[in-house]
Amino acid sequence: MAGNSIGKAFKITSFGESHGNCIGVLIDGCPSGLPLTRTEIEEELSKRLPNQPKIVSARREKDTVNISSGVFNDITTGAPISLTVDNKEVISSDYDLIKDKPRPGHSDFPARVRYGGFNDYRGGGRFSGRGTVALIMAGTIAKKLLDLLNIEILAFTKTIGNVEMEKIVSFEEIRKNRYKTAVRCPDLDSAKLMEKSIINARDEGNSVGGIIECVTLNIPVGLGDPVFDSLDGDIAKMIFAIPAVKGVDFGAGFMSAKLKGSENNDQYALCDKKIVTTTNNSGGILGGLSSGMPIILSVAFKPTPSIGLNQTTVNMKTMKETSLKITGRHDPCVVPKAVPVVESSVALVLVDHLIRADFLPNVLKESK
Amino acid sequence: MAGNSIGKAFKITSFGESHGNCIGVLIDGCPSGLPLTRTEIEEELSKRLPNQPKIVSARREKDTVNISSGVFNDITTGAPISLTVDNKEVISSDYDLIKDKPRPGHSDFPARVRYGGFNDYRGGGRFSGRGTVALIMAGTIAKKLLDLLNIEILAFTKTIGNVEMEKIVSFEEIRKNRYKTAVRCPDLDSAKLMEKSIINARDEGNSVGGIIECVTLNIPVGLGDPVFDSLDGDIAKMIFAIPAVKGVDFGAGFMSAKLKGSENNDQYALCDKKIVTTTNNSGGILGGLSSGMPIILSVAFKPTPSIGLNQTTVNMKTMKETSLKITGRHDPCVVPKAVPVVESSVALVLVDHLIRADFLPNVLKESK
Amino acid sequence: MAGNSIGKAFKITSFGESHGNCIGVLIDGCPSGLPLTRTEIEEELSKRLPNQPKIVSARREKDTVNISSGVFNDITTGAPISLTVDNKEVISSDYDLIKDKPRPGHSDFPARVRYGGFNDYRGGGRFSGRGTVALIMAGTIAKKLLDLLNIEILAFTKTIGNVEMEKIVSFEEIRKNRYKTAVRCPDLDSAKLMEKSIINARDEGNSVGGIIECVTLNIPVGLGDPVFDSLDGDIAKMIFAIPAVKGVDFGAGFMSAKLKGSENNDQYALCDKKIVTTTNNSGGILGGLSSGMPIILSVAFKPTPSIGLNQTTVNMKTMKETSLKITGRHDPCVVPKAVPVVESSVALVLVDHLIRADFLPNVLKESK
Amino acid sequence: MAGNSIGKAFKITSFGESHGNCIGVLIDGCPSGLPLTRTEIEEELSKRLPNQPKIVSARREKDTVNISSGVFNDITTGAPISLTVDNKEVISSDYDLIKDKPRPGHSDFPARVRYGGFNDYRGGGRFSGRGTVALIMAGTIAKKLLDLLNIEILAFTKTIGNVEMEKIVSFEEIRKNRYKTAVRCPDLDSAKLMEKSIINARDEGNSVGGIIECVTLNIPVGLGDPVFDSLDGDIAKMIFAIPAVKGVDFGAGFMSAKLKGSENNDQYALCDKKIVTTTNNSGGILGGLSSGMPIILSVAFKPTPSIGLNQTTVNMKTMKETSLKITGRHDPCVVPKAVPVVESSVALVLVDHLIRADFLPNVLKESK
Repeated sequence: MAGNSIGKAFKITSFGESHGNCIGVLIDGCPSGLPLTRTEIEEELSKRLPNQPKIVSARREKDTVNISSGVFNDITTGAPISLTVDNKEVISSDYDLIKDKPRPGHSDFPARVRYGGFNDYRGGGRFSGRGTVALIMAGTIAKKLLDLLNIEILAFTKTIGNVEMEKIVSFEEIRKNRYKTAVRCPDLDSAKLMEKSIINARDEGNSVGGIIECVTLNIPVGLGDPVFDSLDGDIAKMIFAIPAVKGVDFGAGFMSAKLKGSENNDQYALCDKKIVTTTNNSGGILGGLSSGMPIILSVAFKPTPSIGLNQTTVNMKTMKETSLKITGRHDPCVVPKAVPVVESSVALVLVDHLIRADFLPNVLKESK
Repeated sequence: MAGNSIGKAFKITSFGESHGNCIGVLIDGCPSGLPLTRTEIEEELSKRLPNQPKIVSARREKDTVNISSGVFNDITTGAPISLTVDNKEVISSDYDLIKDKPRPGHSDFPARVRYGGFNDYRGGGRFSGRGTVALIMAGTIAKKLLDLLNIEILAFTKTIGNVEMEKIVSFEEIRKNRYKTAVRCPDLDSAKLMEKSIINARDEGNSVGGIIECVTLNIPVGLGDPVFDSLDGDIAKMIFAIPAVKGVDFGAGFMSAKLKGSENNDQYALCDKKIVTTTNNSGGILGGLSSGMPIILSVAFKPTPSIGLNQTTVNMKTMKETSLKITGRHDPCVVPKAVPVVESSVALVLVDHLIRADFLPNVLKESK
Repeated sequence: MAGNSIGKAFKITSFGESHGNCIGVLIDGCPSGLPLTRTEIEEELSKRLPNQPKIVSARREKDTVNISSGVFNDITTGAPISLTVDNKEVISSDYDLIKDKPRPGHSDFPARVRYGGFNDYRGGGRFSGRGTVALIMAGTIAKKLLDLLNIEILAFTKTIGNVEMEKIVSFEEIRKNRYKTAVRCPDLDSAKLMEKSIINARDEGNSVGGIIECVTLNIPVGLGDPVFDSLDGDIAKMIFAIPAVKGVDFGAGFMSAKLKGSENNDQYALCDKKIVTTTNNSGGILGGLSSGMPIILSVAFKPTPSIGLNQTTVNMKTMKETSLKITGRHDPCVVPKAVPVVESSVALVLVDHLIRADFLPNVLKESK
Repeated sequence: MAGNSIGKAFKITSFGESHGNCIGVLIDGCPSGLPLTRTEIEEELSKRLPNQPKIVSARREKDTVNISSGVFNDITTGAPISLTVDNKEVISSDYDLIKDKPRPGHSDFPARVRYGGFNDYRGGGRFSGRGTVALIMAGTIAKKLLDLLNIEILAFTKTIGNVEMEKIVSFEEIRKNRYKTAVRCPDLDSAKLMEKSIINARDEGNSVGGIIECVTLNIPVGLGDPVFDSLDGDIAKMIFAIPAVKGVDFGAGFMSAKLKGSENNDQYALCDKKIVTTTNNSGGILGGLSSGMPIILSVAFKPTPSIGLNQTTVNMKTMKETSLKITGRHDPCVVPKAVPVVESSVALVLVDHLIRADFLPNVLKESK
């Protein structure tokens, strides 16, 4: 059954496979009147590719975005916006040997069962990290809409494997530094250690995971439609569409399970005549509604399942146990590439809820 | 905008407030032909109330379920099923003093902004833990449908505050023991320590949080509609509708972020001619699809925000800082009550996806 | 699969069976701040029952409305609103003989197949005209919201069987007269002939159909979300949820198929500095969007299938042809009762689209 | 708010503008395992263009279909299928003069208000008949799925202006003859008169409307999810997405409003041990469910609003009344082109409901 759309007011539908013609996204519900050029989307896409070849896979060619509908004279029209990037440099022969041998940690096995063996397995098909290009393309539009309300999203790498970010950084440092480092960590010293950790894993034919933290500033109070379309629930669902995500928590998150109520509760205070909290263990969400404090979430990524070491699997055709050694280009860690994807995912949910709550009108007359 | 429905094939809509007439749930899309009596639902509801008055709040009266539609001669008809329990023993005067003073850690403040002050604030209104009765009532039906496919859901308390479950338990022990202990922990020794931890917090006028783990057995391979209606994404969204949840992860979850690919990947093997994995770090979900292995998730609950200690807040009417001491009956820990709620939440998502994937037919002829 | 909800921003879910406990409706997405009492809903419900016993069936007792959630201190809270009326005076024995013999023109046969024989067949169950009580209850709220924007809906009976309304009536006459006559026709002379036609049919043990016209005044320009959530498409879908409806057209409708473009096109002109059309063959909808002119639709109702004459059918149990004579109380014509139902149906769609297009805010501060 | 998707299990989203880069459609929820080539879609598209230049506008070039995703080795994979045709031969200068002058009978005026003047007005943009290419592309897939169940859809022109089809035709004649005539009428004599009527209108610089009837054979009993996702309601909503549609009715439709119950009720009988009706005034739908008899609907199309005669309008920029004479290529009648569009629209709704009701599985193993 259909499951490739998300969002109710600002709805996106993703399509395309890793080694098919293109990766695409269709955005329905974007207000009319927003200036938009393909260059802006391409700039956002370029954030996926750290300028450090040692830590990402080799597909290096710049993606060119096609805007096929919904934009007229470089301004959104209110009609559905179709965005695609063509897939180039595709080497599908890499995947021939794994057609019948599911890679441990990948979706190969359940996907084959789910789609009766008709799924495009090349490069992981629909399940490839390449598919996150769709989220970033749509996210570029979402971020531009958030800009109009002065809302800013800052994601960054907090841990890579066992290397944790050491320094406590300011919003300003995150803003300035995260995309300067190949691993997208705003603490420059920790960044170096993280980079090393990825290179080490790569050199072993292995891989590492990590945690991304995402902070959203200037969000209005009361966003969300609980009990089911809660802000945290909708963000969590969107985040799980990113390959390799295994967990999401908000504010103190799993840590709050260990705190006493007196430690975890964020006390209220006045600041510039506005109600704020003096701590933010809630991560800016209470009862599924935004509290006005920064929205903070952490996202756990597992280590890339594609590793160069020998693994055991089962040949689905012969139904015999066998071994597998994955070749071809693969990221030893998906976390750096995922930082702008997490930002985009959060932006998409926020815009949906901002439109639902009338913070963004149908027609952006003011932005003409 | 409407946000109180969830599920596409098996859709539930919750309604009712803590101190209103009733808590209710409407189930649309239940197959016809399922035997159903209110007694079965009441039995499931009774799992919320541990037989240990020291660790839960005082509302002790048994809930009586009304089935108002969709059931004829004790069998589901295929029409929407309306289930309600009346609210009794309501003491709303408890809440008068907090009408204008938002309780730290509660949704009082954002809810007042979101609904313009018209929300029913008594007892937390829509945001009360009482609302989870809706999830359990609908979950009873979902569990009965899962029974037909031999699918079993086992949730249990894994940690309370700093007390972690020590013993590794078998599925059989979880099945047998979890509801025997007041804290719903199948390791009876740890259970005692957890209970003590809750009573200590209560005695201090404080509260504690905890972590619930949930295991689902006998799930078919390939359930889920990625990329957005992924099985993990849909479960996560549902789980965040439970009050006090701050995080969700699957399998090794946040821990997997620290592992190497070679450690985290679950190798494939044959067992009774079926493809299985020899470990289950993925928690039974790969690429948003079920792998056939047990689905395992952990849910982090923050400590109950209602505590008896003095806290600082802001009077929303006078816009002055003030202090607040919450009186009335409150659970010092929501985790024990939440165990059947987590089970129900997972059951509801699974049934939705089982219907979507044709594992459950429109008409249950066989169960007559 | 779930199919009992409609609307995206202002969503209603109907439940209940003709001879079950109650008929109910759940409204999700109603703005907070709207004053609402059960008396207002009961008044709207009373419009279903003309003060003329000869033309409607005998169930005469006044329906009492229960508001179970979503309203606090007689004002909507923004939470889901549950409304029910209990079913009384139910004589289910009337239906025993038709349990296995599907009534011609009724849904008995396809419903039995669809729900595997588990459906509540008594009184038509979910398919009874009684179910329109749900539409009127929700419609009362919708109409109150439209009132805030000065939008008015006027439905009336245009034909009963072969009797057509003769006089051309003004909006003022429709407003004043339609509910004065038992058949809900604002042309008092035609109303008498229509009434006679219904009584004649009843006396023969037969039934008649008719056409209802519905006019909506003061609608803003540009309402609708084409191409699929067009205003006419959404209204049409809602209208087909009313039992016995067999057709819907807008403006000149089927007649426009016979006109030339030069005759059918509505020319634009200025009136009080606003753009209007000098005719309204489009019925106020162009390209799925409201044009600002009155929205006009016609709805065709078939004659009540329950007639007292002998009919042929098939016994579904024995699979033999047989005959059937329906006894019990039945309306000889559903059209008079359906007039407020059509009004409610249109109101529900308009409110959904008004919220979607930001004409109705989340919080009705002004209506306090 | 998003409104360009329809269908729940088999969901389509349309995009593209008349004079933009392309017209496209995204299909989500198509079962995997269906053979599909672009040639099949192009053949279906060619049905829009009668081999008779006198009765349709001049855009004659064959549309070439791009399948960008969801198909691998000419078989559907279960992933979203993206289909586009590029727009060629676009002469946008034709539309410069009407930018500020809304054409009577077109959506120009409400669209300008709805989208704040940012909509792509060229060629009618989203509102052009050209957009129906999206419905036909998706409809081709739907028809192929219906083929697997032996379900057949036959639409044909029943009236053009005042010319009604005279002969009563058999299903076999409809099947054989409708696409042989330029006007898509299976009664060859009436077809000639209809053709003449269109040419006459064109020669006058005028246009005509007409009525399309659509018959669906071999539909199973019990399809539909009432009360709101009724089969007739869902078909009606889809049909209103076709430009120029002003009315829809089923079976005897508006005519049934004039009949007595004894005349309109379809009596049941046995035929080959199956329950059938001896007449089909219901048009194969009772209570929103298919009865198993042929589904019959009629669709009223208004005359093309683009006519060569002088019309009055208002300049939206200067807000002064003015006149307008539309030039450029325009169909004098949209009905012939709309016949395959009606077929596709009905096919799309039926497939959605067949998947919902488990008649079409997720994986089409048998069609390999």
